[in-house]
Amino acid sequence: MAGTPLRVGFIGLGLMGLPMSLNVLRAGFPLTVWNRTASKARAALDSGAQAGRSPADVASRSDVVITMVSDSPDVEEVVLGREGVLEGARPGCTLVDMSTIAPKVTRSLAQRLAERGVELLDAPVSGGTLGAQNGTLSIMVGGKPQVLERCRPVLQAMGQRITYCGPNGMGQVAKLANQIIAAGTLAAVCEGLVFAATAGADLNAVHQAVSGGAASSWQLEHLGRRILNGDFAPGFMVKLMAKDLRLVAEAAEELGVSQLVTPAVRQLFRTAEQLGYGEEGTQAAVKVLESLAKKEARAG
Amino acid sequence: MAGTPLRVGFIGLGLMGLPMSLNVLRAGFPLTVWNRTASKARAALDSGAQAGRSPADVASRSDVVITMVSDSPDVEEVVLGREGVLEGARPGCTLVDMSTIAPKVTRSLAQRLAERGVELLDAPVSGGTLGAQNGTLSIMVGGKPQVLERCRPVLQAMGQRITYCGPNGMGQVAKLANQIIAAGTLAAVCEGLVFAATAGADLNAVHQAVSGGAASSWQLEHLGRRILNGDFAPGFMVKLMAKDLRLVAEAAEELGVSQLVTPAVRQLFRTAEQLGYGEEGTQAAVKVLESLAKKEARAG
Repeated sequence: MAGTPLRVGFIGLGLMGLPMSLNVLRAGFPLTVWNRTASKARAALDSGAQAGRSPADVASRSDVVITMVSDSPDVEEVVLGREGVLEGARPGCTLVDMSTIAPKVTRSLAQRLAERGVELLDAPVSGGTLGAQNGTLSIMVGGKPQVLERCRPVLQAMGQRITYCGPNGMGQVAKLANQIIAAGTLAAVCEGLVFAATAGADLNAVHQAVSGGAASSWQLEHLGRRILNGDFAPGFMVKLMAKDLRLVAEAAEELGVSQLVTPAVRQLFRTAEQLGYGEEGTQAAVKVLESLAKKEARAG
Repeated sequence: MAGTPLRVGFIGLGLMGLPMSLNVLRAGFPLTVWNRTASKARAALDSGAQAGRSPADVASRSDVVITMVSDSPDVEEVVLGREGVLEGARPGCTLVDMSTIAPKVTRSLAQRLAERGVELLDAPVSGGTLGAQNGTLSIMVGGKPQVLERCRPVLQAMGQRITYCGPNGMGQVAKLANQIIAAGTLAAVCEGLVFAATAGADLNAVHQAVSGGAASSWQLEHLGRRILNGDFAPGFMVKLMAKDLRLVAEAAEELGVSQLVTPAVRQLFRTAEQLGYGEEGTQAAVKVLESLAKKEARAG
Protein backbone atom coordinates (compact mmCIF):
# COMPACT_ATOMS: atom_id res chain seq x y z
CA MET A 1 0.00 0.00 0.00
CA ALA A 2 2.99 2.35 0.50
CA GLY A 3 2.78 5.25 -1.92
CA THR A 4 -0.81 4.46 -2.88
CA PRO A 5 -3.20 7.11 -1.59
CA LEU A 6 -5.76 5.94 0.95
CA ARG A 7 -9.06 5.00 -0.65
CA VAL A 8 -11.71 7.07 1.10
CA GLY A 9 -15.42 6.46 1.56
CA PHE A 10 -17.85 9.21 2.48
CA ILE A 11 -21.31 8.61 3.93
CA GLY A 12 -23.62 11.59 4.53
CA LEU A 13 -23.46 14.34 1.91
CA GLY A 14 -25.50 17.07 3.61
CA LEU A 15 -24.75 20.77 4.09
CA MET A 16 -21.47 19.86 5.82
CA GLY A 17 -20.65 16.48 4.28
CA LEU A 18 -20.87 17.48 0.63
CA PRO A 19 -18.28 20.31 0.72
CA MET A 20 -16.07 18.18 3.00
CA SER A 21 -16.19 15.30 0.49
CA LEU A 22 -15.31 17.66 -2.35
CA ASN A 23 -12.21 18.79 -0.43
CA VAL A 24 -11.19 15.13 -0.01
CA LEU A 25 -11.55 14.66 -3.79
CA ARG A 26 -9.56 17.83 -4.51
CA ALA A 27 -6.73 16.56 -2.31
CA GLY A 28 -6.42 13.60 -4.69
CA PHE A 29 -7.97 10.73 -2.70
CA PRO A 30 -10.01 8.14 -4.65
CA LEU A 31 -13.52 8.58 -3.21
CA THR A 32 -16.64 6.43 -3.00
CA VAL A 33 -19.79 8.09 -1.64
CA TRP A 34 -23.23 7.12 -0.38
CA ASN A 35 -26.13 9.24 0.81
CA ARG A 36 -29.58 8.24 2.07
CA THR A 37 -31.11 10.67 -0.42
CA ALA A 38 -29.17 9.62 -3.52
CA SER A 39 -29.77 12.87 -5.45
CA LYS A 40 -27.65 14.80 -2.96
CA ALA A 41 -24.60 12.80 -4.06
CA ARG A 42 -24.78 14.25 -7.57
CA ALA A 43 -22.23 17.07 -7.08
CA ALA A 44 -19.67 14.61 -5.67
CA LEU A 45 -20.21 12.12 -8.53
CA ASP A 46 -19.88 14.95 -11.07
CA SER A 47 -16.55 15.84 -9.46
CA GLY A 48 -15.16 12.33 -9.90
CA ALA A 49 -16.42 10.30 -6.94
CA GLN A 50 -17.68 6.73 -7.39
CA ALA A 51 -21.22 5.82 -6.28
CA GLY A 52 -21.45 3.21 -3.53
CA ARG A 53 -24.60 1.02 -3.48
CA SER A 54 -24.78 0.99 0.32
CA PRO A 55 -22.64 1.88 3.35
CA ALA A 56 -21.39 -1.74 3.25
CA ASP A 57 -20.39 -1.33 -0.39
CA VAL A 58 -18.59 1.96 0.36
CA ALA A 59 -16.73 0.29 3.23
CA SER A 60 -15.66 -2.71 1.09
CA ARG A 61 -14.01 -0.31 -1.37
CA SER A 62 -12.29 1.98 1.18
CA ASP A 63 -9.36 2.12 3.60
CA VAL A 64 -10.93 5.03 5.51
CA VAL A 65 -14.69 5.48 5.79
CA ILE A 66 -15.99 8.89 6.90
CA THR A 67 -19.50 9.29 8.32
CA MET A 68 -21.09 12.74 8.59
CA VAL A 69 -24.71 12.36 9.65
CA SER A 70 -27.03 14.11 12.11
CA ASP A 71 -27.31 12.21 15.36
CA SER A 72 -26.39 9.06 17.30
CA PRO A 73 -29.16 6.83 15.80
CA ASP A 74 -28.14 7.84 12.26
CA VAL A 75 -24.54 6.76 12.89
CA GLU A 76 -25.70 3.51 14.46
CA GLU A 77 -27.92 2.84 11.45
CA VAL A 78 -25.29 3.41 8.76
CA VAL A 79 -22.62 1.51 10.72
CA LEU A 80 -24.48 -1.33 12.47
CA GLY A 81 -27.67 -1.53 10.38
CA ARG A 82 -28.49 -3.76 7.37
CA GLU A 83 -25.90 -3.22 4.64
CA GLY A 84 -24.06 -1.00 7.11
CA VAL A 85 -20.37 -0.19 7.25
CA LEU A 86 -19.71 -3.12 9.58
CA GLU A 87 -20.95 -5.62 6.94
CA GLY A 88 -18.51 -4.38 4.34
CA ALA A 89 -15.45 -3.21 6.25
CA ARG A 90 -12.35 -5.41 6.12
CA PRO A 91 -9.98 -5.68 9.13
CA GLY A 92 -7.52 -2.78 9.07
CA CYS A 93 -10.12 -0.36 7.76
CA THR A 94 -10.75 2.80 9.82
CA LEU A 95 -14.09 4.49 10.43
CA VAL A 96 -13.80 8.25 11.02
CA ASP A 97 -17.10 9.47 12.45
CA MET A 98 -17.23 13.24 12.04
CA SER A 99 -20.85 13.56 13.20
CA THR A 100 -21.62 15.08 16.60
CA ILE A 101 -23.09 12.26 18.69
CA ALA A 102 -23.21 11.01 22.29
CA PRO A 103 -19.74 10.10 23.64
CA LYS A 104 -21.12 6.85 25.07
CA VAL A 105 -22.47 5.78 21.66
CA THR A 106 -19.00 6.46 20.24
CA ARG A 107 -17.41 4.22 22.86
CA SER A 108 -19.91 1.45 22.27
CA LEU A 109 -19.39 1.68 18.49
CA ALA A 110 -15.61 1.51 18.98
CA GLN A 111 -16.05 -1.76 20.85
CA ARG A 112 -18.30 -3.31 18.21
CA LEU A 113 -15.90 -2.27 15.44
CA ALA A 114 -12.82 -3.49 17.31
CA GLU A 115 -14.33 -6.99 17.46
CA ARG A 116 -14.11 -6.97 13.65
CA GLY A 117 -10.63 -5.44 13.47
CA VAL A 118 -11.95 -2.05 12.43
CA GLU A 119 -10.54 1.07 14.10
CA LEU A 120 -12.65 4.10 15.02
CA LEU A 121 -11.81 7.77 15.32
CA ASP A 122 -14.44 10.17 16.63
CA ALA A 123 -13.63 13.41 14.85
CA PRO A 124 -16.45 15.95 15.17
CA VAL A 125 -15.87 19.39 13.70
CA SER A 126 -16.62 23.02 14.32
CA GLY A 127 -16.54 25.84 11.81
CA GLY A 128 -19.90 25.51 10.05
CA THR A 129 -20.62 25.30 6.36
CA LEU A 130 -18.09 28.03 5.60
CA GLY A 131 -15.33 26.07 7.33
CA ALA A 132 -16.47 22.93 5.48
CA GLN A 133 -16.27 24.71 2.11
CA ASN A 134 -12.92 26.35 2.80
CA GLY A 135 -11.32 23.30 4.39
CA THR A 136 -10.72 25.28 7.59
CA LEU A 137 -12.69 23.17 10.06
CA SER A 138 -11.46 22.59 13.59
CA ILE A 139 -11.41 18.80 14.07
CA MET A 140 -11.51 17.27 17.58
CA VAL A 141 -10.20 13.73 17.57
CA GLY A 142 -10.72 10.82 19.95
CA GLY A 143 -9.12 7.40 19.42
CA LYS A 144 -5.65 5.92 19.19
CA PRO A 145 -2.88 8.40 18.31
CA GLN A 146 -1.38 6.05 15.70
CA VAL A 147 -4.76 5.72 13.96
CA LEU A 148 -5.03 9.51 13.85
CA GLU A 149 -1.56 9.68 12.26
CA ARG A 150 -2.60 7.18 9.57
CA CYS A 151 -5.72 9.23 8.76
CA ARG A 152 -4.20 12.69 9.20
CA PRO A 153 -3.65 13.34 5.46
CA VAL A 154 -7.38 12.83 4.87
CA LEU A 155 -8.37 15.06 7.80
CA GLN A 156 -5.95 17.75 6.59
CA ALA A 157 -7.94 17.93 3.37
CA MET A 158 -10.94 19.13 5.42
CA GLY A 159 -9.57 20.99 8.42
CA GLN A 160 -6.95 23.42 9.60
CA ARG A 161 -6.79 22.73 13.31
CA ILE A 162 -6.67 19.02 14.19
CA THR A 163 -6.52 18.45 17.96
CA TYR A 164 -5.95 15.07 19.54
CA CYS A 165 -8.22 14.98 22.61
CA GLY A 166 -7.72 11.49 24.04
CA PRO A 167 -9.25 8.00 23.67
CA ASN A 168 -12.54 7.30 21.86
CA GLY A 169 -15.31 9.62 23.01
CA MET A 170 -12.98 12.50 23.92
CA GLY A 171 -13.38 14.13 20.50
CA GLN A 172 -17.13 14.16 21.18
CA VAL A 173 -16.57 15.50 24.71
CA ALA A 174 -14.48 18.37 23.31
CA LYS A 175 -17.14 19.08 20.69
CA LEU A 176 -19.90 19.17 23.31
CA ALA A 177 -17.76 21.52 25.43
CA ASN A 178 -17.41 23.66 22.30
CA GLN A 179 -21.20 23.74 21.90
CA ILE A 180 -21.77 24.58 25.59
CA ILE A 181 -19.45 27.57 25.16
CA ALA A 182 -20.62 28.69 21.72
CA ALA A 183 -24.35 28.43 22.56
CA GLY A 184 -23.93 30.11 25.96
CA THR A 185 -21.91 32.92 24.44
CA LEU A 186 -24.55 33.48 21.76
CA ALA A 187 -27.36 33.40 24.35
CA ALA A 188 -25.51 36.09 26.33
CA VAL A 189 -25.07 38.20 23.18
CA CYS A 190 -28.79 37.90 22.38
CA GLU A 191 -29.83 38.78 25.92
CA GLY A 192 -27.48 41.77 26.09
CA LEU A 193 -28.73 43.15 22.77
CA VAL A 194 -32.41 42.67 23.64
CA PHE A 195 -31.83 44.36 27.02
CA ALA A 196 -30.21 47.36 25.32
CA ALA A 197 -32.84 47.55 22.59
CA THR A 198 -35.71 47.46 25.09
CA ALA A 199 -34.03 50.26 27.05
CA GLY A 200 -34.11 52.32 23.86
CA ALA A 201 -30.40 52.16 23.03
CA ASP A 202 -28.88 52.53 19.56
CA LEU A 203 -27.80 48.93 18.94
CA ASN A 204 -25.07 49.85 16.50
CA ALA A 205 -23.47 52.07 19.15
CA VAL A 206 -23.85 49.35 21.79
CA HIS A 207 -22.37 46.72 19.47
CA GLN A 208 -19.40 48.97 18.78
CA ALA A 209 -18.93 49.87 22.45
CA VAL A 210 -18.95 46.28 23.70
CA SER A 211 -16.93 44.75 20.85
CA GLY A 212 -13.60 46.09 22.00
CA GLY A 213 -13.16 44.42 25.35
CA ALA A 214 -14.08 41.66 27.74
CA ALA A 215 -17.44 41.00 26.04
CA SER A 216 -15.91 40.36 22.62
CA SER A 217 -16.34 36.98 20.94
CA TRP A 218 -16.75 35.29 17.58
CA GLN A 219 -20.49 35.11 18.31
CA LEU A 220 -20.76 38.85 19.09
CA GLU A 221 -18.72 39.83 16.07
CA HIS A 222 -20.35 37.56 13.49
CA LEU A 223 -23.83 36.71 14.74
CA GLY A 224 -24.35 39.95 16.71
CA ARG A 225 -23.71 41.78 13.45
CA ARG A 226 -26.22 39.53 11.62
CA ILE A 227 -28.83 40.22 14.30
CA LEU A 228 -28.38 43.98 13.79
CA ASN A 229 -28.85 43.42 10.05
CA GLY A 230 -31.95 41.22 10.54
CA ASP A 231 -30.07 38.37 8.79
CA PHE A 232 -31.21 34.97 10.08
CA ALA A 233 -29.72 32.78 7.34
CA PRO A 234 -28.15 29.64 8.82
CA GLY A 235 -24.44 29.30 9.38
CA PHE A 236 -25.50 26.64 11.88
CA MET A 237 -29.18 25.77 12.35
CA VAL A 238 -31.19 26.26 15.56
CA LYS A 239 -32.46 22.66 15.40
CA LEU A 240 -28.91 21.25 15.29
CA MET A 241 -27.82 23.39 18.24
CA ALA A 242 -30.90 22.20 20.15
CA LYS A 243 -29.90 18.62 19.33
CA ASP A 244 -26.29 19.18 20.44
CA LEU A 245 -27.50 20.71 23.72
CA ARG A 246 -29.70 17.63 24.24
CA LEU A 247 -26.54 15.50 23.89
CA VAL A 248 -24.89 17.79 26.46
CA ALA A 249 -27.79 17.39 28.90
CA GLU A 250 -27.74 13.60 28.55
CA ALA A 251 -23.96 13.39 28.96
CA ALA A 252 -24.00 15.78 31.94
CA GLU A 253 -26.67 13.66 33.58
CA GLU A 254 -24.61 10.50 33.13
CA LEU A 255 -21.45 12.23 34.37
CA GLY A 256 -23.18 13.76 37.39
CA VAL A 257 -22.27 17.29 36.30
CA SER A 258 -24.67 19.92 37.68
CA GLN A 259 -24.99 22.79 35.24
CA LEU A 260 -26.49 26.12 36.25
CA VAL A 261 -26.49 28.04 32.98
CA THR A 262 -26.51 25.54 30.09
CA PRO A 263 -30.01 24.17 30.88
CA ALA A 264 -31.38 27.72 30.44
CA VAL A 265 -29.40 28.07 27.20
CA ARG A 266 -30.83 24.77 25.97
CA GLN A 267 -34.34 25.95 26.83
CA LEU A 268 -33.74 29.06 24.72
CA PHE A 269 -32.81 27.04 21.62
CA ARG A 270 -35.60 24.46 22.20
CA THR A 271 -38.11 27.29 22.43
CA ALA A 272 -36.72 28.83 19.25
CA GLU A 273 -37.20 25.48 17.49
CA GLN A 274 -40.72 25.09 18.89
CA LEU A 275 -41.60 28.59 17.67
CA GLY A 276 -40.67 27.56 14.12
CA TYR A 277 -37.12 28.89 13.80
CA GLY A 278 -35.47 25.43 13.65
CA GLU A 279 -34.02 25.84 10.16
CA GLU A 280 -32.84 29.41 10.71
CA GLY A 281 -29.39 30.32 11.97
CA THR A 282 -28.69 30.03 15.70
CA GLN A 283 -28.86 33.84 15.95
CA ALA A 284 -32.66 33.48 15.56
CA ALA A 285 -32.65 32.69 19.30
CA VAL A 286 -32.82 36.47 19.70
CA LYS A 287 -36.41 36.37 18.38
CA VAL A 288 -37.52 34.32 21.39
CA LEU A 289 -36.12 36.93 23.78
CA GLU A 290 -37.58 39.79 21.75
CA SER A 291 -41.03 38.26 21.84
CA LEU A 292 -40.75 37.77 25.62
CA ALA A 293 -39.65 41.38 26.07
CA LYS A 294 -42.59 42.59 24.02
CA LYS A 295 -45.12 40.43 25.85
CA GLU A 296 -43.87 41.61 29.22
CA ALA A 297 -43.92 45.23 28.13
CA ARG A 298 -47.49 44.81 26.91
CA ALA A 299 -48.55 43.22 30.16
CA GLY A 300 -46.67 45.77 32.30
CA MET B 1 -11.03 79.90 29.08
CA ALA B 2 -9.82 79.28 25.51
CA GLY B 3 -6.35 77.78 25.56
CA THR B 4 -6.49 77.05 29.28
CA PRO B 5 -6.69 73.32 29.96
CA LEU B 6 -9.83 72.14 31.71
CA ARG B 7 -9.39 71.88 35.47
CA VAL B 8 -10.31 68.33 36.43
CA GLY B 9 -11.55 66.92 39.73
CA PHE B 10 -11.39 63.22 40.55
CA ILE B 11 -13.45 61.55 43.27
CA GLY B 12 -12.87 57.86 44.01
CA LEU B 13 -9.28 56.67 43.79
CA GLY B 14 -9.73 52.91 44.02
CA LEU B 15 -8.26 50.12 41.88
CA MET B 16 -9.70 51.77 38.77
CA GLY B 17 -9.88 55.44 39.77
CA LEU B 18 -6.27 55.85 40.87
CA PRO B 19 -4.61 54.76 37.60
CA MET B 20 -7.26 56.68 35.64
CA SER B 21 -6.50 59.85 37.62
CA LEU B 22 -2.78 59.41 37.01
CA ASN B 23 -3.44 59.27 33.26
CA VAL B 24 -5.40 62.54 33.51
CA LEU B 25 -2.44 64.11 35.28
CA ARG B 26 0.01 62.77 32.69
CA ALA B 27 -2.08 64.32 29.93
CA GLY B 28 -1.39 67.73 31.52
CA PHE B 29 -4.71 68.56 33.20
CA PRO B 30 -4.56 70.38 36.56
CA LEU B 31 -6.12 67.86 38.96
CA THR B 32 -7.79 68.02 42.36
CA VAL B 33 -8.64 64.72 44.03
CA TRP B 34 -10.70 63.41 46.92
CA ASN B 35 -11.15 59.91 48.29
CA ARG B 36 -13.22 58.63 51.21
CA THR B 37 -10.12 56.86 52.55
CA ALA B 38 -7.66 59.77 52.30
CA SER B 39 -4.52 57.58 52.35
CA LYS B 40 -5.43 56.11 48.95
CA ALA B 41 -5.00 59.57 47.39
CA ARG B 42 -1.29 59.58 48.25
CA ALA B 43 0.02 58.33 44.87
CA ALA B 44 -2.00 61.00 43.03
CA LEU B 45 -0.80 63.78 45.36
CA ASP B 46 2.80 62.61 44.96
CA SER B 47 2.34 62.88 41.18
CA GLY B 48 1.24 66.52 41.39
CA ALA B 49 -2.50 66.46 42.15
CA GLN B 50 -4.01 68.90 44.68
CA ALA B 51 -5.94 67.56 47.67
CA GLY B 52 -9.59 68.55 47.88
CA ARG B 53 -11.15 68.79 51.37
CA SER B 54 -14.47 67.34 50.20
CA PRO B 55 -16.36 66.52 46.99
CA ALA B 56 -17.83 70.06 47.22
CA ASP B 57 -14.32 71.53 47.47
CA VAL B 58 -13.14 69.47 44.49
CA ALA B 59 -16.15 70.65 42.46
CA SER B 60 -15.57 74.33 43.35
CA ARG B 61 -12.07 74.06 41.90
CA SER B 62 -12.92 72.12 38.71
CA ASP B 63 -14.50 72.51 35.28
CA VAL B 64 -14.97 68.75 34.96
CA VAL B 65 -15.56 66.51 37.97
CA ILE B 66 -15.08 62.76 37.52
CA THR B 67 -16.64 60.25 39.93
CA MET B 68 -15.46 56.63 39.99
CA VAL B 69 -17.09 54.85 42.90
CA SER B 70 -18.72 51.45 43.45
CA ASP B 71 -22.48 51.68 43.25
CA SER B 72 -25.54 53.93 42.90
CA PRO B 73 -25.71 54.97 46.62
CA ASP B 74 -22.02 55.92 46.59
CA VAL B 75 -22.54 58.24 43.63
CA GLU B 76 -25.63 59.75 45.25
CA GLU B 77 -23.68 60.34 48.45
CA VAL B 78 -20.69 62.10 46.89
CA VAL B 79 -22.90 64.16 44.57
CA LEU B 80 -26.05 64.94 46.60
CA GLY B 81 -24.82 64.35 50.17
CA ARG B 82 -23.41 66.84 52.71
CA GLU B 83 -20.40 68.63 51.20
CA GLY B 84 -21.18 66.80 47.97
CA VAL B 85 -20.38 67.85 44.41
CA LEU B 86 -23.71 69.68 44.07
CA GLU B 87 -22.81 72.04 46.95
CA GLY B 88 -19.58 73.15 45.28
CA ALA B 89 -20.23 72.96 41.55
CA ARG B 90 -20.73 76.21 39.68
CA PRO B 91 -23.11 76.48 36.68
CA GLY B 92 -21.29 75.34 33.55
CA CYS B 93 -19.39 72.65 35.39
CA THR B 94 -19.75 69.04 34.12
CA LEU B 95 -19.97 65.89 36.21
CA VAL B 96 -18.63 62.81 34.42
CA ASP B 97 -19.77 59.76 36.36
CA MET B 98 -17.63 56.80 35.27
CA SER B 99 -19.03 54.43 37.91
CA THR B 100 -21.35 51.60 36.86
CA ILE B 101 -24.73 52.42 38.42
CA ALA B 102 -28.46 52.07 37.72
CA PRO B 103 -29.55 53.95 34.56
CA LYS B 104 -32.55 55.40 36.43
CA VAL B 105 -30.29 56.84 39.15
CA THR B 106 -28.23 58.44 36.38
CA ARG B 107 -31.32 60.06 34.88
CA SER B 108 -32.52 61.32 38.25
CA LEU B 109 -29.05 62.74 39.03
CA ALA B 110 -28.99 64.48 35.65
CA GLN B 111 -32.25 66.22 36.53
CA ARG B 112 -31.03 67.35 39.95
CA LEU B 113 -27.79 68.66 38.45
CA ALA B 114 -29.53 70.41 35.55
CA GLU B 115 -31.56 72.47 38.06
CA ARG B 116 -28.23 73.94 39.18
CA GLY B 117 -26.84 74.42 35.68
CA VAL B 118 -24.50 71.43 35.97
CA GLU B 119 -24.25 68.98 33.05
CA LEU B 120 -23.90 65.23 33.50
CA LEU B 121 -22.29 62.57 31.37
CA ASP B 122 -22.65 58.93 32.35
CA ALA B 123 -19.44 57.34 31.12
CA PRO B 124 -18.92 53.86 32.55
CA VAL B 125 -15.93 51.91 31.34
CA SER B 126 -14.84 48.41 30.48
CA GLY B 127 -11.31 47.10 30.28
CA GLY B 128 -10.44 46.43 33.91
CA THR B 129 -7.46 47.61 35.90
CA LEU B 130 -5.12 46.87 33.00
CA GLY B 131 -7.13 49.16 30.69
CA ALA B 132 -7.20 51.80 33.44
CA GLN B 133 -3.42 51.68 33.80
CA ASN B 134 -2.71 51.70 30.06
CA GLY B 135 -5.33 54.34 29.20
CA THR B 136 -7.04 51.85 26.88
CA LEU B 137 -10.50 51.71 28.48
CA SER B 138 -13.64 51.45 26.39
CA ILE B 139 -15.87 54.36 27.54
CA MET B 140 -19.65 54.26 26.95
CA VAL B 141 -21.13 57.74 27.08
CA GLY B 142 -24.66 58.98 27.74
CA GLY B 143 -25.61 62.67 27.76
CA LYS B 144 -25.59 65.59 25.33
CA PRO B 145 -23.23 65.21 22.35
CA GLN B 146 -21.87 68.76 22.79
CA VAL B 147 -21.04 68.04 26.44
CA LEU B 148 -19.16 64.90 25.35
CA GLU B 149 -17.19 66.98 22.83
CA ARG B 150 -16.21 69.47 25.56
CA CYS B 151 -15.00 66.65 27.83
CA ARG B 152 -13.51 64.43 25.11
CA PRO B 153 -9.87 65.51 25.71
CA VAL B 154 -10.16 64.41 29.34
CA LEU B 155 -11.78 61.08 28.38
CA GLN B 156 -9.09 60.50 25.77
CA ALA B 157 -6.50 60.59 28.54
CA MET B 158 -8.16 57.47 30.01
CA GLY B 159 -9.66 55.54 27.11
CA GLN B 160 -9.13 54.40 23.56
CA ARG B 161 -12.65 53.65 22.38
CA ILE B 162 -15.15 56.38 23.29
CA THR B 163 -18.66 55.54 22.07
CA TYR B 164 -21.57 57.97 22.23
CA CYS B 165 -24.59 55.84 23.16
CA GLY B 166 -27.46 58.38 23.50
CA PRO B 167 -29.01 60.59 26.18
CA ASN B 168 -28.27 60.24 29.91
CA GLY B 169 -28.57 56.65 31.10
CA MET B 170 -27.64 55.12 27.74
CA GLY B 171 -23.97 54.86 28.70
CA GLN B 172 -25.09 52.80 31.69
CA VAL B 173 -27.43 50.71 29.51
CA ALA B 174 -24.54 49.90 27.16
CA LYS B 175 -22.33 49.00 30.13
CA LEU B 176 -24.98 46.69 31.59
CA ALA B 177 -25.39 45.05 28.16
CA ASN B 178 -21.60 44.62 28.17
CA GLN B 179 -21.78 42.89 31.57
CA ILE B 180 -24.66 40.62 30.50
CA ILE B 181 -22.54 39.48 27.56
CA ALA B 182 -19.19 39.25 29.37
CA ALA B 183 -20.60 37.40 32.41
CA GLY B 184 -22.70 35.04 30.28
CA THR B 185 -19.74 34.27 28.04
CA LEU B 186 -17.55 33.52 31.05
CA ALA B 187 -20.25 31.33 32.63
CA ALA B 188 -20.44 29.33 29.39
CA VAL B 189 -16.64 28.97 29.32
CA CYS B 190 -16.63 27.73 32.93
CA GLU B 191 -19.45 25.26 32.30
CA GLY B 192 -17.82 23.93 29.14
CA LEU B 193 -14.48 23.39 30.87
CA VAL B 194 -16.01 21.72 33.94
CA PHE B 195 -18.06 19.44 31.67
CA ALA B 196 -14.93 18.39 29.76
CA ALA B 197 -12.85 17.97 32.93
CA THR B 198 -15.49 15.78 34.59
CA ALA B 199 -15.62 13.63 31.46
CA GLY B 200 -11.89 13.08 31.88
CA ALA B 201 -10.69 15.24 29.00
CA ASP B 202 -7.29 16.91 28.75
CA LEU B 203 -8.29 20.55 29.32
CA ASN B 204 -5.32 21.96 27.45
CA ALA B 205 -6.34 19.99 24.36
CA VAL B 206 -9.97 21.06 24.76
CA HIS B 207 -8.97 24.71 25.21
CA GLN B 208 -6.88 24.55 22.07
CA ALA B 209 -9.56 22.74 20.07
CA VAL B 210 -12.35 25.18 20.94
CA SER B 211 -10.30 28.39 20.72
CA GLY B 212 -10.17 28.49 16.94
CA GLY B 213 -13.80 28.82 16.02
CA ALA B 214 -17.32 29.76 16.98
CA ALA B 215 -16.65 29.31 20.71
CA SER B 216 -13.76 31.76 20.79
CA SER B 217 -13.95 34.88 22.94
CA TRP B 218 -11.90 37.25 25.05
CA GLN B 219 -13.18 35.36 28.12
CA LEU B 220 -12.13 31.95 26.76
CA GLU B 221 -8.74 33.20 25.66
CA HIS B 222 -7.82 35.19 28.78
CA LEU B 223 -9.81 33.77 31.69
CA GLY B 224 -10.07 30.23 30.30
CA ARG B 225 -6.27 30.20 30.21
CA ARG B 226 -6.13 31.48 33.83
CA ILE B 227 -8.52 28.73 34.92
CA LEU B 228 -6.23 26.10 33.36
CA ASN B 229 -3.32 27.67 35.26
CA GLY B 230 -5.24 27.82 38.56
CA ASP B 231 -4.78 31.61 38.56
CA PHE B 232 -7.69 33.34 40.32
CA ALA B 233 -6.13 36.81 40.76
CA PRO B 234 -8.67 39.52 40.00
CA GLY B 235 -8.75 41.38 36.72
CA PHE B 236 -12.35 42.11 37.71
CA MET B 237 -13.73 40.91 41.06
CA VAL B 238 -16.56 38.41 41.52
CA LYS B 239 -18.33 40.76 43.98
CA LEU B 240 -18.37 43.61 41.44
CA MET B 241 -19.76 41.36 38.72
CA ALA B 242 -22.43 40.18 41.16
CA LYS B 243 -23.27 43.84 41.84
CA ASP B 244 -23.43 44.68 38.13
CA LEU B 245 -25.74 41.71 37.51
CA ARG B 246 -27.98 42.97 40.34
CA LEU B 247 -28.21 46.30 38.48
CA VAL B 248 -29.09 44.32 35.33
CA ALA B 249 -31.83 42.39 37.16
CA GLU B 250 -33.33 45.60 38.59
CA ALA B 251 -33.22 47.41 35.24
CA ALA B 252 -34.67 44.38 33.39
CA GLU B 253 -37.51 44.24 35.91
CA GLU B 254 -38.32 47.93 35.40
CA LEU B 255 -38.10 47.59 31.62
CA GLY B 256 -40.25 44.44 31.54
CA VAL B 257 -37.49 42.43 29.87
CA SER B 258 -37.79 38.68 30.54
CA GLN B 259 -34.36 37.11 30.63
CA LEU B 260 -33.89 33.35 30.38
CA VAL B 261 -30.14 32.98 30.83
CA THR B 262 -28.82 36.01 32.73
CA PRO B 263 -30.68 35.17 35.98
CA ALA B 264 -28.82 31.83 36.07
CA VAL B 265 -25.56 33.64 35.34
CA ARG B 266 -26.27 36.07 38.18
CA GLN B 267 -26.96 33.15 40.50
CA LEU B 268 -23.57 31.67 39.60
CA PHE B 269 -21.70 34.86 40.57
CA ARG B 270 -23.83 35.40 43.71
CA THR B 271 -23.07 31.86 44.80
CA ALA B 272 -19.36 32.41 44.14
CA GLU B 273 -19.51 35.51 46.35
CA GLN B 274 -21.42 33.66 49.08
CA LEU B 275 -18.85 30.87 49.03
CA GLY B 276 -16.11 33.41 49.81
CA TYR B 277 -14.68 34.13 46.35
CA GLY B 278 -15.94 37.75 46.22
CA GLU B 279 -12.51 39.36 46.00
CA GLU B 280 -11.12 36.85 43.51
CA GLY B 281 -11.27 37.29 39.76
CA THR B 282 -14.54 36.51 37.97
CA GLN B 283 -12.98 33.27 36.67
CA ALA B 284 -13.37 31.91 40.23
CA ALA B 285 -17.00 31.20 39.22
CA VAL B 286 -15.58 27.93 37.88
CA LYS B 287 -15.02 26.79 41.48
CA VAL B 288 -18.77 26.83 42.15
CA LEU B 289 -19.39 24.55 39.18
CA GLU B 290 -16.48 22.28 40.12
CA SER B 291 -17.82 21.84 43.64
CA LEU B 292 -21.28 21.00 42.24
CA ALA B 293 -19.80 18.45 39.85
CA LYS B 294 -17.88 16.83 42.68
CA LYS B 295 -20.89 16.69 45.01
CA GLU B 296 -23.05 15.14 42.33
CA ALA B 297 -20.39 12.61 41.43
CA ARG B 298 -20.08 11.66 45.10
CA ALA B 299 -23.84 11.26 45.48
CA GLY B 300 -24.19 9.39 42.18
